[in-house]
Amino acid sequence: MSQAAPVTEHALLEVIPGREAEFEAAFEKARPIVSQSDGFGSLRLLRCLEQPSRYLLLIEWRSLEAHTVGFRGSPLYERWRELLHHFYDPFPTVIHFETVTEVAG
Amino acid sequence: MSQAAPVTEHALLEVIPGREAEFEAAFEKARPIVSQSDGFGSLRLLRCLEQPSRYLLLIEWRSLEAHTVGFRGSPLYERWRELLHHFYDPFPTVIHFETVTEVAG
Repeated sequence: MSQAAPVTEHALLEVIPGREAEFEAAFEKARPIVSQSDGFGSLRLLRCLEQPSRYLLLIEWRSLEAHTVGFRGSPLYERWRELLHHFYDPFPTVIHFETVTEVAG
Repeated sequence: MSQAAPVTEHALLEVIPGREAEFEAAFEKARPIVSQSDGFGSLRLLRCLEQPSRYLLLIEWRSLEAHTVGFRGSPLYERWRELLHHFYDPFPTVIHFETVTEVAG
C-alpha cells in the first residue's frame, strides 16, 4: 500500500428524474455489497434539497487502494454496477479526499 | 421553522493554486466562527487527492434555516467571508442534503 491514510470517496449522483424511488430501493440492495468489501469504513447516501434527483454518496475507506484496487477489482463491483449504474445521467465523476480538520458533533 | 430535519451543507471549494497553506491557516481561524453559530452540529474540511487545490466543506446543521437564515444573517458570517472568500476561484456553489441511508463506521 502506497497510500495508507483513510480516504473519503465522493460522488455526486445525478439520477434520471422520476426514477428516484427505484434508485433508493436499488441502493438498499447495493449497500451490503460495498460494506462487505475489505477496507470499507462507513457510508452515507444523501439527497439534495435544492435538486431532488441529485444524490451525494460518501464512503470512508481505509486507504485509496481499498476503493480503487480492492473494491473496483472485485466481483462485488460487478454486482454494484449492475444494480446502480443505469440510474445515472450523466455518469458521475468519483473523487477522493483526505480530512484536513474537523469539529465533531 | 418550515424545515426541521438536520441537513448537510456541501461546498466544493476551488482554492487559487499556490494559496492552499494560507487557506488552511485562515480556515483554522474561521472554524470557531461557524461552530459557535446557533444550530451548528459538526464540520469537516477535506482536501482532494486528485486535485490538491480543491477542498470539500461539509457542515451539519440542525435545520436548513440554521444555515441559510441564522448563520448567513448573522454578524459571524461577515467575519467568515472576510477570512475565506478571497481564496476561491470560482466562487463555490453551496447545496444542502438530507441523509437517506447510512452504514455507520
